[in-house]
Amino acid sequence: MRIGVDVMGGDFAPDAIIEGAVDSLQLLSGEERVVLIGDENHISGKLGEMKVNPVLFDIVHAPEVILMSDSPAKAFAQKKRSSIAIGYGMLKNGSLDGFCSAGNTGAMMVGASYSVNVIPGVFRPALATVIPRIDNHDSVLLDVGLNPDCKPDVLLQYGILGTLFAKYVLGIENPDVGLLNIGEEETKGTATVKAAYELMKEHPGLNFAGNVEGHGLFLKSMPDVIVCDGFVGNIVLKQAEVFHHIYKLRNLKDSFFDRLDFENIGGTPIVGINANVVIGHGISRRKAIMNMIHQTKAVVHGNLAQRIKEAI
Amino acid sequence: MRIGVDVMGGDFAPDAIIEGAVDSLQLLSGEERVVLIGDENHISGKLGEMKVNPVLFDIVHAPEVILMSDSPAKAFAQKKRSSIAIGYGMLKNGSLDGFCSAGNTGAMMVGASYSVNVIPGVFRPALATVIPRIDNHDSVLLDVGLNPDCKPDVLLQYGILGTLFAKYVLGIENPDVGLLNIGEEETKGTATVKAAYELMKEHPGLNFAGNVEGHGLFLKSMPDVIVCDGFVGNIVLKQAEVFHHIYKLRNLKDSFFDRLDFENIGGTPIVGINANVVIGHGISRRKAIMNMIHQTKAVVHGNLAQRIKEAI
Repeated sequence: MRIGVDVMGGDFAPDAIIEGAVDSLQLLSGEERVVLIGDENHISGKLGEMKVNPVLFDIVHAPEVILMSDSPAKAFAQKKRSSIAIGYGMLKNGSLDGFCSAGNTGAMMVGASYSVNVIPGVFRPALATVIPRIDNHDSVLLDVGLNPDCKPDVLLQYGILGTLFAKYVLGIENPDVGLLNIGEEETKGTATVKAAYELMKEHPGLNFAGNVEGHGLFLKSMPDVIVCDGFVGNIVLKQAEVFHHIYKLRNLKDSFFDRLDFENIGGTPIVGINANVVIGHGISRRKAIMNMIHQTKAVVHGNLAQRIKEAI
Repeated sequence: MRIGVDVMGGDFAPDAIIEGAVDSLQLLSGEERVVLIGDENHISGKLGEMKVNPVLFDIVHAPEVILMSDSPAKAFAQKKRSSIAIGYGMLKNGSLDGFCSAGNTGAMMVGASYSVNVIPGVFRPALATVIPRIDNHDSVLLDVGLNPDCKPDVLLQYGILGTLFAKYVLGIENPDVGLLNIGEEETKGTATVKAAYELMKEHPGLNFAGNVEGHGLFLKSMPDVIVCDGFVGNIVLKQAEVFHHIYKLRNLKDSFFDRLDFENIGGTPIVGINANVVIGHGISRRKAIMNMIHQTKAVVHGNLAQRIKEAI
């Protein structure tokens, strides 16, 4: 298995990325290779400084950088020798099994849609994030930001994509799927969510658990998959982040609140495209990068893109 | 000032309501009268049991009860001698200045719309809740559940209603108003939210602070007013509730997390109707009821309904 890592993307790139990649080796087997894509000189220099044998990695030189401030579509088209463009090229020609970056999210999305492409039959890809439950299990929440406006059939399909994620990446047998809503009753919510409820209720093969309210999140009773549009999902995810931030600020200590730390989650897979791609937080440091790489490994192991291709 | 309290509404009614009303007296002046509306015999018996002099209250007998399970519109129309119907009748004829209930929310909303009525010029009333900031100030979030689907002009008007709330109920001079969104940039979000941004940006008299993301909530930088549709607002509020719940479950101690307790907030005013009405949580016990009554007092003191009538 070959996991490509964008060394040039992220607020603390390239050094934090290389450090995180070095740390990630602890939990990788000999069959799993990390491919560092970025400025070759810098990578060699940094590995030397860290006294890490460079043969532990494959290194692919990328002389261009897509900056956080670059216009995504333009940069992806013009900077063909950037780490993001090279990573997607390698994904497409099969020389990578997975690719991850904490860089320009827009450029990563452009690559997803125009380079490896959306899986035929998928209406809209989604960003799926793992969220913790107090019983020490995890659930998957999607979409967390790609599609702020979602039609009912898109929400239904997120239920299916999320089921495949829960099953093959998290290893949950027969995952149940909840629809995030403002009441338990079928008649609650926006017109779109009500219509999605009807579709999900009747869809064979979807283990539908009905509506889940905001105060049902994170509890033991939370279904394995939570479906919502990218507007609501993004706000739920960031609200969890701010609670974690306040928890740290106030010097509290608790294992559940620790699990809300994005550094422990590592990254957010793009679900519904022809490749296994994980997007990291721009502010990722060493530990978050390590976990982004492990997250990518889990997605590749679950063979997620292929499973979706077969199911849709 | 006369504050009506629905003694029959709520999961722990009538006893918890009477107890909370007794506790509320500590913080009321002699000018502020609590009017207990419910089963007269039960009220007298309970006050006797508590050794509280009944002359401290006005008692209005209501022989009928709207149950939590009753159909709101039907119950409000048919049970004319219920505590909720009598409360609204007294609001309408001026014998109450404010009214609060932890009972059937739907019936409270029916009363709001069909008895005291929406203020002319208000597109849609909203439920506004006070949310804590880590700097010990409070902000107001609206809508938290009345209108899951909101048009841009409704969101703009929530900004105006929220400004009046922050100014007259919370006592904040020139409150700033943020639009809850999934990015800071003007081009982020749903089509509706983008259109609302344009309207809010250009509205004279609105101290618009731009977009606020989920991870900007509860921080010192959070604007005094946060505007969103009732779907998103409801989920934000309930997610805060579940974090408070987990915080308690795990025996953490912190003054900020304590402030997330709905028992300390007490109730949610209906903003935009011709009267000062506060809705309490169905599961309110003694302390939450006391705070619901104090919340109602603050809304009456701020003369909120009248301020809105003058401004809209």
